[in-house]
Amino acid sequence: MTDDVSANTGSAEDAVVIGIDFGTLSGRAVVVRAADGTELGSAEYAYRHGVITDRLPGRDEPLAPETALQHPEDYREVLRSAVPEALRRAAVGPERVIGIGTDFTACTVLPVTADGTPLCQLDDLRDRPHAWPKLWRHHAAQPEADEINALAAERGEEWLPRYGGRISSEWQFAKALQVLREDPEVYERTERWIEAADWIVWQLCGHETRNVATAGYKGLYQDGRWPSKDFQAALDPRFATFAQDKLDHPLSQLGERAGALTGRAAEWTGLPAGVPVAVGNIDAHVTAATARTTEPGRMLAIMGTSTCHVMNSDVLAEVPGMCGLALGGITPGMWGYEAGQSGVGDIFGWFANTHVPPAYHEEAAERGLSVHEVLSDRAAGAAVGEHGLVALDWHSGNRSVLVDHALSGVLVGMTLATRPEEVYRALVEATAFGTRTIIEAFTGAGVPVHDLTIGGGMVRNPFVLQVYADVLNRPLRVVDTEHSCAVGSAVHAAVAAGFHPDVHTASAAMGRVREATVGPDPGRSAAYDDLFAVYTELHDHFGRGGSDSLHRLRALRHEALTRTDRTARGAR
Amino acid sequence: MTDDVSANTGSAEDAVVIGIDFGTLSGRAVVVRAADGTELGSAEYAYRHGVITDRLPGRDEPLAPETALQHPEDYREVLRSAVPEALRRAAVGPERVIGIGTDFTACTVLPVTADGTPLCQLDDLRDRPHAWPKLWRHHAAQPEADEINALAAERGEEWLPRYGGRISSEWQFAKALQVLREDPEVYERTERWIEAADWIVWQLCGHETRNVATAGYKGLYQDGRWPSKDFQAALDPRFATFAQDKLDHPLSQLGERAGALTGRAAEWTGLPAGVPVAVGNIDAHVTAATARTTEPGRMLAIMGTSTCHVMNSDVLAEVPGMCGLALGGITPGMWGYEAGQSGVGDIFGWFANTHVPPAYHEEAAERGLSVHEVLSDRAAGAAVGEHGLVALDWHSGNRSVLVDHALSGVLVGMTLATRPEEVYRALVEATAFGTRTIIEAFTGAGVPVHDLTIGGGMVRNPFVLQVYADVLNRPLRVVDTEHSCAVGSAVHAAVAAGFHPDVHTASAAMGRVREATVGPDPGRSAAYDDLFAVYTELHDHFGRGGSDSLHRLRALRHEALTRTDRTARGAR
Repeated sequence: MTDDVSANTGSAEDAVVIGIDFGTLSGRAVVVRAADGTELGSAEYAYRHGVITDRLPGRDEPLAPETALQHPEDYREVLRSAVPEALRRAAVGPERVIGIGTDFTACTVLPVTADGTPLCQLDDLRDRPHAWPKLWRHHAAQPEADEINALAAERGEEWLPRYGGRISSEWQFAKALQVLREDPEVYERTERWIEAADWIVWQLCGHETRNVATAGYKGLYQDGRWPSKDFQAALDPRFATFAQDKLDHPLSQLGERAGALTGRAAEWTGLPAGVPVAVGNIDAHVTAATARTTEPGRMLAIMGTSTCHVMNSDVLAEVPGMCGLALGGITPGMWGYEAGQSGVGDIFGWFANTHVPPAYHEEAAERGLSVHEVLSDRAAGAAVGEHGLVALDWHSGNRSVLVDHALSGVLVGMTLATRPEEVYRALVEATAFGTRTIIEAFTGAGVPVHDLTIGGGMVRNPFVLQVYADVLNRPLRVVDTEHSCAVGSAVHAAVAAGFHPDVHTASAAMGRVREATVGPDPGRSAAYDDLFAVYTELHDHFGRGGSDSLHRLRALRHEALTRTDRTARGAR
Repeated sequence: MTDDVSANTGSAEDAVVIGIDFGTLSGRAVVVRAADGTELGSAEYAYRHGVITDRLPGRDEPLAPETALQHPEDYREVLRSAVPEALRRAAVGPERVIGIGTDFTACTVLPVTADGTPLCQLDDLRDRPHAWPKLWRHHAAQPEADEINALAAERGEEWLPRYGGRISSEWQFAKALQVLREDPEVYERTERWIEAADWIVWQLCGHETRNVATAGYKGLYQDGRWPSKDFQAALDPRFATFAQDKLDHPLSQLGERAGALTGRAAEWTGLPAGVPVAVGNIDAHVTAATARTTEPGRMLAIMGTSTCHVMNSDVLAEVPGMCGLALGGITPGMWGYEAGQSGVGDIFGWFANTHVPPAYHEEAAERGLSVHEVLSDRAAGAAVGEHGLVALDWHSGNRSVLVDHALSGVLVGMTLATRPEEVYRALVEATAFGTRTIIEAFTGAGVPVHDLTIGGGMVRNPFVLQVYADVLNRPLRVVDTEHSCAVGSAVHAAVAAGFHPDVHTASAAMGRVREATVGPDPGRSAAYDDLFAVYTELHDHFGRGGSDSLHRLRALRHEALTRTDRTARGAR
């Protein structure tokens, strides 16, 4: 390309990279020194349209339940506002920027024309919900996911075990099949069905690229192949060449250079045209570079409202209940594993907001603490098992290792003496038991887990970290930045720019982590083994078919909500 | 007896009887017209010493855990203060009183000398905890109860199935064996081991009587026999003639005349000496007379913090998990069945007090309601099953039909959308499912249950009553007096006085009940059948050996609390 800028403009000391993280509600940019990862400045832009769940902009028609859309212009606005603002705060001149990297929520996916124009920005399609980007948490394609899973299991599709035996309604195929079924014209007009992670890179460098990670984790691309035309035709004859027509493109490795900043994108960002742009990436996965967990067997748990586990390995195995497996999906050349817990911080938040009496809120106000801190403080002094409780952390279903979104929470052991901080602690412990179950699934399948690093918002909660260290009987490493995703994108930018030779080296130089800051207590760990045995018994009973109670309750709830005979409503 | 007063002093219209109910925290007297049960006045005396759990009056030594004692002088004080005050409020002259009846908590039991003097009122024994009356809820004799149960099961004792296969630590034998084991001298000095129900009658009429109900339900007296000397000797050689020495006495039928008011008791009460005194009785059981449920197959559920079910039948059967069965134990000539739920209102109270956030308390204050009423109000409008929850109501263990105090509560089906009123409703429903389980155990054993009457404090809760009517798919009768026990004692007084020929007739004339005031909704009842199926599955899994989780959690809790290695305490 003729508009390239050399990676070595200025001194190596001066060189900076920009990482841009596209989250669920906002995007943020961070300016980072390429040599050592020092953060120089950052800025955030909250998407003006947020998550579109009720109606399209300017329209009155209600959207279908479980719809979650976004506006592509909000993504572009991050480039226009957060990037220049981060540079301004960093007091760094644009000429010092040697590379740009991005990461995105996944699977957030949109239909576009052959030149990358989102269908929702075509005049004749802007009022069609299926023309809009579908956010990762758009769950309306569950029927299609169920259909894909049933057919793949029946046909013994080889790619299915790579996803723990079940794909998610959040992924590319389920969402695309929903479009075909519900709005065939939009499906027909979709020339490219593209992850937002790749679309934003297209916006920056002016041509389409596809990254290996979203193809592998969200696009069912395994061992160099998409799902077969036979399989797709069996889903729907009109769907027979879906992947071949709308997804297929040479795949790029993570940390590769996708291209150079176009003149248009240079205008948006205030950066010089020609700056190298890294290949698109997934938010959780770039964090492995921030956490210095790119070496095999270093598991990273990104703990926020939910938890995402990512780990590289040199071993290929089909771990029961993992979310996905892709070669090079986290770092080039290694098998990248992904697992997850669908509810973690949001379970604690639910309990703190809805099940804690006034005295605790008053104490929080008096002591200048959050209700979470009051609960943690009261819970922390008790002996392991003193509360007599065990919970199952399935309030949002179970991602790994059961892959069952229809499950729900369980709490056993309450007495009239049970206090809120005890239930809170049991919920925290349950999520730690969930992580332990995932780690044991990996080691049981022959994929070693050498250590565990915690990232995400939960790193600021010492009580939660201590419970995890004790339950897992391991010291924990902790990610040490507020911008763990954006910094990871910056690491990839430095590789794409040629400043560092590969992601491992860049991660070692630029990563931000505190080593072994939280250690387990041997006595507590031993006591937790007993509670974990009870957890496992309940987990298997309610999750593996011993009891179908949770599914029956969900079905009864659905019946109750849709019952037309209103005589059965109410209790007086 | 020479000091009798004729039952027919004055006109029948004028005749009144006094019922005295000795509860856990207070005693109350009610003056009732013998002809029709009209309540003319009542008064209550709160025991000055309440429940003695921490230390004996005037002593500093702490009492053992789970100790619950009372002061006999508090019982006498009810006679001295509540009886004259009730008469004063009724504006009834003492000469119109034709009979006195009493009822008591059971098994509340005390060691006395041959003349009825409580050992705790002897100078040399007043500092000995085992010399004091043990309240029904003294649970420190659990090891002795376990021992009795194991031995009785091993020996195939015929009386054991009459108690659902397991006796309670609350009963006469367990408590007495604890005294023997822990204070042999007090045991030795115990000339009579007597229910407070019989002791108070002794205080009124000056000589010992024993009622058939406490002997049958709490004293293991079945088919005209106490447990054999062999059995007792096998427990402890010193215990070989326990029943024969310290319990045995001719038994009196309920509603019989025990004797006439002594001069001393006449002074206490302000009544004429010679007034007929009825045989002692149990608080829950006299309520059957108030509720007009003395006919066979009319089950009465007395619902307060816990629920006691009492029912007469002409059928003899061993209902699995019933608490007890005694011929004439409720009404002379019939098989009296007892069952129970150990936690009902106190589970609702626990939840309302400890798991409801500030907004609900504020709403309660603004609307002038209790938190219970706010929760009920918010919960009542939902469809059956809409909350997606099922609970097991075992926060205080399970009395019937599992007879297992080591169980604890379970809640399944929570999501991040679950609201406090939904959990509250699930808890109310769980207790209704518990009652349904008991009723089905009776009908399954061939003991028909024709209808159900609700008594106790819960009659004032329309939400709870409606849930019960729907879950049980039956109209409910409701006891219609604030003084359901004391009125029942008054009915028995009227029989003892000869005013009515028998308890059935007296109950029909004097009972206070509203017929079929709460009816089931067919749609809701059908929907509850589905939820009850889930409840039953969980009930059997956790309660009948499918999972030992609840016992293991209790054991782990006990270990945690008694762990001397403090390194395992705390979580940070």
